[in-house]
Amino acid sequence: MIEPTNLIQKFRRVRSHTEAVASWLSEADQTIQSMPDASPTKWHRAHTTWFFDTFVLAGAHSKHRPDFDGFDILFNSYYESVGPMHPRGDRGLITRPGAHDITRYREATDGAVVELLAESYDAVGHIVEIGLHHEQQHLELLLMDIKHAMFQNPLLPAIFPGDAPSSVINIARPSWTSIPGGVVTIGQRSDSEEFGFDNERPDHRVFLDNFEIADQLVTNRDWLGFMTDGGYAKHELWLSAGWAAVNNHQWRAPLYWMEKDGTWWNYTHHGLAEVDPTAPVVHISYFEAEAYAKWAGARLPTEAEWEHALTTVGTESTPSASDHPFGITGLSPRGASKITPMGQAMDAVWQWTQSAYLPYPGFIPADGALGEYNGKFMSGQMVLRGGSSITPVGHTRPTYRNFFPPDSQWLYSGLRLAR
Amino acid sequence: MIEPTNLIQKFRRVRSHTEAVASWLSEADQTIQSMPDASPTKWHRAHTTWFFDTFVLAGAHSKHRPDFDGFDILFNSYYESVGPMHPRGDRGLITRPGAHDITRYREATDGAVVELLAESYDAVGHIVEIGLHHEQQHLELLLMDIKHAMFQNPLLPAIFPGDAPSSVINIARPSWTSIPGGVVTIGQRSDSEEFGFDNERPDHRVFLDNFEIADQLVTNRDWLGFMTDGGYAKHELWLSAGWAAVNNHQWRAPLYWMEKDGTWWNYTHHGLAEVDPTAPVVHISYFEAEAYAKWAGARLPTEAEWEHALTTVGTESTPSASDHPFGITGLSPRGASKITPMGQAMDAVWQWTQSAYLPYPGFIPADGALGEYNGKFMSGQMVLRGGSSITPVGHTRPTYRNFFPPDSQWLYSGLRLAR
Amino acid sequence: MIEPTNLIQKFRRVRSHTEAVASWLSEADQTIQSMPDASPTKWHRAHTTWFFDTFVLAGAHSKHRPDFDGFDILFNSYYESVGPMHPRGDRGLITRPGAHDITRYREATDGAVVELLAESYDAVGHIVEIGLHHEQQHLELLLMDIKHAMFQNPLLPAIFPGDAPSSVINIARPSWTSIPGGVVTIGQRSDSEEFGFDNERPDHRVFLDNFEIADQLVTNRDWLGFMTDGGYAKHELWLSAGWAAVNNHQWRAPLYWMEKDGTWWNYTHHGLAEVDPTAPVVHISYFEAEAYAKWAGARLPTEAEWEHALTTVGTESTPSASDHPFGITGLSPRGASKITPMGQAMDAVWQWTQSAYLPYPGFIPADGALGEYNGKFMSGQMVLRGGSSITPVGHTRPTYRNFFPPDSQWLYSGLRLAR
Amino acid sequence: MIEPTNLIQKFRRVRSHTEAVASWLSEADQTIQSMPDASPTKWHRAHTTWFFDTFVLAGAHSKHRPDFDGFDILFNSYYESVGPMHPRGDRGLITRPGAHDITRYREATDGAVVELLAESYDAVGHIVEIGLHHEQQHLELLLMDIKHAMFQNPLLPAIFPGDAPSSVINIARPSWTSIPGGVVTIGQRSDSEEFGFDNERPDHRVFLDNFEIADQLVTNRDWLGFMTDGGYAKHELWLSAGWAAVNNHQWRAPLYWMEKDGTWWNYTHHGLAEVDPTAPVVHISYFEAEAYAKWAGARLPTEAEWEHALTTVGTESTPSASDHPFGITGLSPRGASKITPMGQAMDAVWQWTQSAYLPYPGFIPADGALGEYNGKFMSGQMVLRGGSSITPVGHTRPTYRNFFPPDSQWLYSGLRLAR
Repeated sequence: MIEPTNLIQKFRRVRSHTEAVASWLSEADQTIQSMPDASPTKWHRAHTTWFFDTFVLAGAHSKHRPDFDGFDILFNSYYESVGPMHPRGDRGLITRPGAHDITRYREATDGAVVELLAESYDAVGHIVEIGLHHEQQHLELLLMDIKHAMFQNPLLPAIFPGDAPSSVINIARPSWTSIPGGVVTIGQRSDSEEFGFDNERPDHRVFLDNFEIADQLVTNRDWLGFMTDGGYAKHELWLSAGWAAVNNHQWRAPLYWMEKDGTWWNYTHHGLAEVDPTAPVVHISYFEAEAYAKWAGARLPTEAEWEHALTTVGTESTPSASDHPFGITGLSPRGASKITPMGQAMDAVWQWTQSAYLPYPGFIPADGALGEYNGKFMSGQMVLRGGSSITPVGHTRPTYRNFFPPDSQWLYSGLRLAR
Repeated sequence: MIEPTNLIQKFRRVRSHTEAVASWLSEADQTIQSMPDASPTKWHRAHTTWFFDTFVLAGAHSKHRPDFDGFDILFNSYYESVGPMHPRGDRGLITRPGAHDITRYREATDGAVVELLAESYDAVGHIVEIGLHHEQQHLELLLMDIKHAMFQNPLLPAIFPGDAPSSVINIARPSWTSIPGGVVTIGQRSDSEEFGFDNERPDHRVFLDNFEIADQLVTNRDWLGFMTDGGYAKHELWLSAGWAAVNNHQWRAPLYWMEKDGTWWNYTHHGLAEVDPTAPVVHISYFEAEAYAKWAGARLPTEAEWEHALTTVGTESTPSASDHPFGITGLSPRGASKITPMGQAMDAVWQWTQSAYLPYPGFIPADGALGEYNGKFMSGQMVLRGGSSITPVGHTRPTYRNFFPPDSQWLYSGLRLAR
Repeated sequence: MIEPTNLIQKFRRVRSHTEAVASWLSEADQTIQSMPDASPTKWHRAHTTWFFDTFVLAGAHSKHRPDFDGFDILFNSYYESVGPMHPRGDRGLITRPGAHDITRYREATDGAVVELLAESYDAVGHIVEIGLHHEQQHLELLLMDIKHAMFQNPLLPAIFPGDAPSSVINIARPSWTSIPGGVVTIGQRSDSEEFGFDNERPDHRVFLDNFEIADQLVTNRDWLGFMTDGGYAKHELWLSAGWAAVNNHQWRAPLYWMEKDGTWWNYTHHGLAEVDPTAPVVHISYFEAEAYAKWAGARLPTEAEWEHALTTVGTESTPSASDHPFGITGLSPRGASKITPMGQAMDAVWQWTQSAYLPYPGFIPADGALGEYNGKFMSGQMVLRGGSSITPVGHTRPTYRNFFPPDSQWLYSGLRLAR
Repeated sequence: MIEPTNLIQKFRRVRSHTEAVASWLSEADQTIQSMPDASPTKWHRAHTTWFFDTFVLAGAHSKHRPDFDGFDILFNSYYESVGPMHPRGDRGLITRPGAHDITRYREATDGAVVELLAESYDAVGHIVEIGLHHEQQHLELLLMDIKHAMFQNPLLPAIFPGDAPSSVINIARPSWTSIPGGVVTIGQRSDSEEFGFDNERPDHRVFLDNFEIADQLVTNRDWLGFMTDGGYAKHELWLSAGWAAVNNHQWRAPLYWMEKDGTWWNYTHHGLAEVDPTAPVVHISYFEAEAYAKWAGARLPTEAEWEHALTTVGTESTPSASDHPFGITGLSPRGASKITPMGQAMDAVWQWTQSAYLPYPGFIPADGALGEYNGKFMSGQMVLRGGSSITPVGHTRPTYRNFFPPDSQWLYSGLRLAR
């Protein structure tokens, strides 16, 4: 576990990172919700605060009440053990408390948490750390959700100022890296000093055959090849549920793509930008990733293969905090002058694996209400590994298990082939 | 038609009335939409402006463009003749333009309209007058819609400051007024100087039997009697579609009512307030009104009966502009020291009639796109007559035909019995 | 009321008519249900029997029980006063009782009804007569419903043997008949000896302006003209709800029409047949009828106009029982050598009127559970007048009010213009 | 592969088994469909025939055409490669062809297949064998589907004659069997002489920790304990999607259970029968199985654990063809006088595992259209192992992978615990 001073410093950094992003959004921007799976910016800001309020301050009898009455119902996400909650699909109808009230809620909570950390570090330090990782997850969700929400506006406004950052990852023709199999260990070691969620543990042995994995991600150029070859029209490439999704949603390209006069554009946080052929493809569902892999004569890696390959061949990418979209460290496609095998594994895009999100052998959920954090979602979702250009710095690690339903497109998801 | 100077004065009064109401609402409040039938405050402010922009300025080549690009799509409500429109159910996802952009749009449009009125009164005066009546309709809708939207918030915030105005209408035991029948004339006379919509014309003859009509509206006390007697549980009182609505929506009381510890409260623009037994019942659907009338051994009047009764027995209520909820003339349950036969007909609550909303014999829709204003909605709706405490002063008249689907509750609707 | 002997004779005729039609349908044909608004053949056969069982025999303590246990729930349509009922949309899932069980139920009930009629004619004769009109309504519904159900089969089977009868109505160019207005009396007279439902009474006075009505129905040729002129693509012709239906259901022609190689065919009880240009158009919704009338520069008549015109100008069509589709009197487009003004009013097709289905002034529903027969459906439906080629002989009269929702197409509905 | 003579014999046995079951069902019973996931009996009979017609006869130019026109569209289930297909949810609306037409189709096809087998065994023998396993799967589905369909009838008819067979499996208190882990081989060996589907192959190595598995299935008595302890009301036992299903569907007990006067009954193929506490619980979803295991302080086995345990400890149950519900070999809860470790693994009930249905490493779908048989469904489903009392004899094997969505209850599913 990290040192008290470092934790307080990290607390301030993470919390202010959220606020820095939100500062570009109007009161109205922060209020709306474009689908039940997404949440308003304001809700993310309040829910992450409620998390500290409930799991840190309430336990220490420091919970704030009179001014923030009703917040327990409004900002509980899904913790049945904690109490009743406002329906998820109605989050976009809450105009009061307003953005400024949430700012006050954050400030009051921050003060109390810092004070408590100073007093009772041993008792609350670990939960504060969970809360910070939780907030980092929500910052990524916030960036996904606001993009989806603003995309519903036919005027396609730029959310943040400046141009869309050009990709700093120049993907060359990928080559295959051979990875020897055998009985390998997967998951976070029990003696790890690193932070990890309950679903990454325990470490356990898995048998793998020898396999090959691509050292580069699939690019937009690759994807255009799939599209041009009729990939979205060939039923034989698709899982049955994927083919139904293609037809129901009329999928013809990744989410946010649109064609104008023969050129493909995509909607970004900075407005419309031309699709960059050398950048990793992003905003594709598991179904699309799976169909692409079949089309390419390959397959997706399992999460065990992915993790084993990464720890075997390593990554040498150099996150460059100086290259950021709006002045905030770590919210950027992190550049690297020299990309080595799986160099983009931990940045760029989340990578769909062939693995369903299920408990590791011997999985034990966290104690108490926090046991609802991960375990109860182990049904109907697929695992993604890696991290993305909007994942906060420090929030990725080789054992991290991200998960989404197989038809989700609004996350920063792409793919890496295996065979 | 009214005089040029008076019209300009009225233009300023009506337009600023909308702005005065909106001024109490935050950017977020103005953005959300709680159901497809309702619209955001900001949208009402912009759409009424678009109406002048499109039907007055565009015809005179004064339409504003560069700053308000995209507004034609966003703020066209349902005028197929004018061009494409943003889907009705997605109005609550538009955060940009923001409330301030709409203010600029209103100001620019207002300036151009006033200028044009000074130059070309004969050409545009009539359409400007339609536009003002249109805006008054939307002000009432805005007040209905924001109430519905804020009611979705479990904190039940007060929308406007101050207490809910206590009812100034003390409804005594109603008595029946006998109206002699015969062939009577209904609808607005062709030689009328008063403003009227196309659907109120032409005047035409209707045969009525003798009938009786109540001189008072049904009150909350009356409605509690219906509830106590099991009115919502007796299928024999209800139309088949009404009984389905009772069961599907679990109707047990008017919209916005809730019981706490044996007392009934209702949500108002000023927050929760105790139900006033002497006030007219409001926020009931046609189905509820019809069931109540059956329970009471009576029936709803037809719109012809209502209009004939009103013109026969008259009204002596005295609108009192001084009694208003937040300093704006005409947004108030208008008091009257002496209520006479049908004294509350033109204020208090809209009154459901037994008449379907259909064209009068010889009905001719207005020319051009404005022909879409009323005629195309003549299916599946019931007529209401009168006016309500949130209807702007000057927007009621005996021939006015309001109309809503029979399951609508969010308007200011009540009932008056006939037999 | 009709004579005892005649009633028994009629009882046998009406009941066996239903059975004769059903005899062409397999056990499977009789079982299925293609939409909640339609019912299985077997259900119609059983429900009409349940009607006699419940309203005639049960009152006389002659109701049959042990063998037909559970039938009260399965075959009650919508009589809340009588008891619980099986959900309407699940009627197609009942395979047991089978068709033969229903035949036994019919036979047992028939015997008991005839016996009771002989014993207690005065007490039950009137309700038996209602039951027979009820059964005639259901025979028409049965023929509508089985057509709709079999149309779902891509093999488009012929339901009955033989060819589709060619239209015996040769519709010439229509001319307008002028009808003088004034105060006229509408509805069934209280001293009428004819049978009538409660919703046709009481007779009452209505004021009508002078008007003109077409002496001929709109034909398929006329309708093809509307289609060719883009009638289904011109929003300005349609009510708002009608335009939504056109787009949601992709309406491009009447129900059951399909184009093959430039020729229009329609599905009939006898399989596919070429559309006959001289026959009246049929299987159109109110929305389509209303749009057509607007396109033709005319309008639909009100039900009062229709009834007044019919009683003023009369009809001289000669129903010809010899021309029938499968050997059963009265199930036929009845021929007439000489068609006079409104000669096809009472046969050929039901004619949409501009009138919403609402109670007549002074309407009193029938006593007891039979009060649920008509009155509770007086919401959201439009009136049709006349009768159709599948209406049993003797089931039409000038005051008869048929009613369906404005988007219904599966009935035998067409139109006659007025202006 | 089995010998020619044996295959012809098996062909006749399997085909007549289907017909023997269907012979108890009326034309109407065979026609209806109670949900999109289920199919009509008649459809199963025709689809399994279409399978031989398409994959055996058509390849050999022996396909039957003129009499069975349209059958290719009606009875193709999901083979996109073969051609268009009738929508799955509309299968219950096909009354023609009738049951007798399907019998003729089966007879004609059977004759041609037998003839072809005699002539060209080497060319078609393998596909015929697949077709028989396919038909056995559909016989089990047919029995599941007809039970679900008849359960919709409030009269709860007995589908087959006779009493529900009492359970011949007397489940004693289970004990745990310890299974040593290590690298084990799972899946059907490439040199196996036994039939297998593509999804069971290739055999491959898996690492397993040591584990324990119950030698007995969970019983109805156990399940009543879970219910009594409030299992369906404790959110903490459930996956998030499972908890949503509990609340949406109001699950309170296994499918087909109902309580009367304090006693639990369940609907069987022979009508209502009292719940037998010693029988294995059946008709539970994966969500319920998973919640039960958590409640019991255990977990579900993975499919690798299940298969490894079975092959390690074996089964000694003795299927007894003499004990059958209606005179047909192999459609019975097969008795065994002495139940040994995992003795009921291959009969009684399918057992939910903790494994998502995904491809084995190196999975290669079958060639051609048959490649659509299994592989494209590898998303969103969970694996079940074993077999059930309605699984045809000879259709179970240790490597068999059954799969259903996690909310499915209408299959014969139960559970066995592991830890």
